[in-house]
Amino acid sequence: MPPAASLVFTTLLSHGPLTRAEVGRRTKLSPAAVTKAVRPLMELGYLVEGVDEEARPAVGRPANLVWVDGGRALFIGIKVTGDEIIAVLADLCCRIRMSRHVPLRGREPEAVLPAITALVQELLTEADGFGVPVRGLGIAISGDVDRADGVVRYSPFLEWRDVPLAEMTGTATGLPVTVDNDVRALTVAEHWFGAGVGLSDFALVTVGAGIGCGLVVHGRVVSGAHGVAGEVGHLSLDPLGPLCHCGNRGCVEAIAADPAILRAVRAVTGGQVADTAEALALAHGADAVVRGIYTRAGEAIGKAIGFLVNILGPQRVIISGEGLAAYDLVAEGIREAFAASAFGTAARCDVVTRPLPFEEWARGAAATAIQSFTGSGRSEESR
Amino acid sequence: MPPAASLVFTTLLSHGPLTRAEVGRRTKLSPAAVTKAVRPLMELGYLVEGVDEEARPAVGRPANLVWVDGGRALFIGIKVTGDEIIAVLADLCCRIRMSRHVPLRGREPEAVLPAITALVQELLTEADGFGVPVRGLGIAISGDVDRADGVVRYSPFLEWRDVPLAEMTGTATGLPVTVDNDVRALTVAEHWFGAGVGLSDFALVTVGAGIGCGLVVHGRVVSGAHGVAGEVGHLSLDPLGPLCHCGNRGCVEAIAADPAILRAVRAVTGGQVADTAEALALAHGADAVVRGIYTRAGEAIGKAIGFLVNILGPQRVIISGEGLAAYDLVAEGIREAFAASAFGTAARCDVVTRPLPFEEWARGAAATAIQSFTGSGRSEESR
Repeated sequence: MPPAASLVFTTLLSHGPLTRAEVGRRTKLSPAAVTKAVRPLMELGYLVEGVDEEARPAVGRPANLVWVDGGRALFIGIKVTGDEIIAVLADLCCRIRMSRHVPLRGREPEAVLPAITALVQELLTEADGFGVPVRGLGIAISGDVDRADGVVRYSPFLEWRDVPLAEMTGTATGLPVTVDNDVRALTVAEHWFGAGVGLSDFALVTVGAGIGCGLVVHGRVVSGAHGVAGEVGHLSLDPLGPLCHCGNRGCVEAIAADPAILRAVRAVTGGQVADTAEALALAHGADAVVRGIYTRAGEAIGKAIGFLVNILGPQRVIISGEGLAAYDLVAEGIREAFAASAFGTAARCDVVTRPLPFEEWARGAAATAIQSFTGSGRSEESR
Repeated sequence: MPPAASLVFTTLLSHGPLTRAEVGRRTKLSPAAVTKAVRPLMELGYLVEGVDEEARPAVGRPANLVWVDGGRALFIGIKVTGDEIIAVLADLCCRIRMSRHVPLRGREPEAVLPAITALVQELLTEADGFGVPVRGLGIAISGDVDRADGVVRYSPFLEWRDVPLAEMTGTATGLPVTVDNDVRALTVAEHWFGAGVGLSDFALVTVGAGIGCGLVVHGRVVSGAHGVAGEVGHLSLDPLGPLCHCGNRGCVEAIAADPAILRAVRAVTGGQVADTAEALALAHGADAVVRGIYTRAGEAIGKAIGFLVNILGPQRVIISGEGLAAYDLVAEGIREAFAASAFGTAARCDVVTRPLPFEEWARGAAATAIQSFTGSGRSEESR
């Protein structure tokens, strides 16, 4: 689609149904430009126009509304974690029609790629039942991902380097493939459908196996000139803090990510802790030393959010990720450290939490596939 | 001007003279939209079109070029520091035609406002000689400035709170007034004419009486949802560091700004240091303890730039400000701390220094007045 058409399309995706006048107001396009953008999309059946029967006025002519016809195309979105693959079949409105989880037997590309391919085949078969074509596959993966080239440059959790994932999965499935960083993909979904709808500037901070951050500034996702952006996890806050896998000390990720917390809990308890759930149970059981570890994790996250807010001044920061399971233990540390580090009116930034299960991350991957399909992610891809 | 016209205007300001086709390519406007944008600006005389005689080909028709006719309007730009006011008379191309410095007798609005008014009157008289109208006044001032309302909310150096500067100076001078944060104004000038030309994402870090930072992301200056952005000076890097005027400890500004360095040098030498120049002389005279203070200042700046780059991934960071006088003493600290804190490929960011005298800051103020005149700063003003 031309830029104006994809702008109209994504506006309708987030805010539709809308009148043409409202589309013009939101996109700042002239009535003629809206007409020009809408016409081919209607001819293809992706947009429909009609009367909103519920809003029909008692007298006078009802307003015509335009919206996206979600049923006209399907997309597959996949999120790869260290342990499993989560896949969704989503429609053109990015509504989840179906989802699947499969455990991973290994993390190397030789184990992950066949699992992705098998899952895609399964969903393609299901899609046949809807009688609607699958137009694209989005894959979201943590680490340094070059979306334009479809290459996973470096994924620390999977220990992948320079894996041409788009090409490999495209050949295996026959679908157009979009590969993106998982937090960036989730940020697209939050911008279109979640706590970022209608905001021009927000940050999504994810806490879990790592600390991630997606940024929207001036209405668009920030990708970084060299592929790195939103790396709040590697702000080195404490030069005397624990060693991080990046080589620095006291990074937020080395203090507040799940593995770091588990390591610290094992150190104080003498190693008798199997996993994150057990560490959490100890803290909830009022083990003061273990609770202190969570408090410090919260403080590191809060300080990092304060730094982010001082630099960018967003309207909102959304905190999400598996780490929210410990939110009651970290909330106070986050709040206090954020309030202490935010400068002046920056402290007015709205900081919210939002649980987003892995299906939502997979939905984010589907959203990137819809972006590629509609050309709306082009500016990000070209970076 | 409508948005398309101001986009065309600023594109020609930075990159002109250009063919209409090139304007279309750079602005992503259709030929019809370029024609529509250019026509009224030509009728007003702000744009002219003609043949570039130097580029006339040996055979065939020469290409018509469009450019801004700088001589058609004048603007006054003013930068207020703690000690003096710097004013420039600039044309529509933001070329400096004349500049003036006047010392300040006090920092309170009652001392600064008459000084501004007198200087503006002086430049208005000079402008008469050009036979061209002065179309606007821009004032750049450090601190939290609400450009849309024309109010200086809080300027720590001047100790101003809630001063309606645009209204007061507008009444006194009869000119349309734009008031903006000084670093943001300088960032506009760098984006249009300096080391930020052609870049969509860069940061300008200024080191001097304070530590400032202007950001351009996706081609536009970041203002912050609540008026705060680019506050790298108040990243609290060291919880045991010196107390900052913001109340935190170990802020970059409390370690690396000129007053902080002077305070630290006085502390180690027992108070026998009159000013920044004397502190510099001691360091250049190989006083190892004093040199160490500059090294630590450089490290704080380098770490803050690393944090900024990890979060935003800009194409370039420009370091400027009066503090560059000590650059030979801080350069190594900046370089090493930046390299240590930048994550992965973010370290590839181009970090450059650029001396920008206060006339350039005043030119930035004139640039904000040109923005207001052409409507190109509207999106920033509305924030």
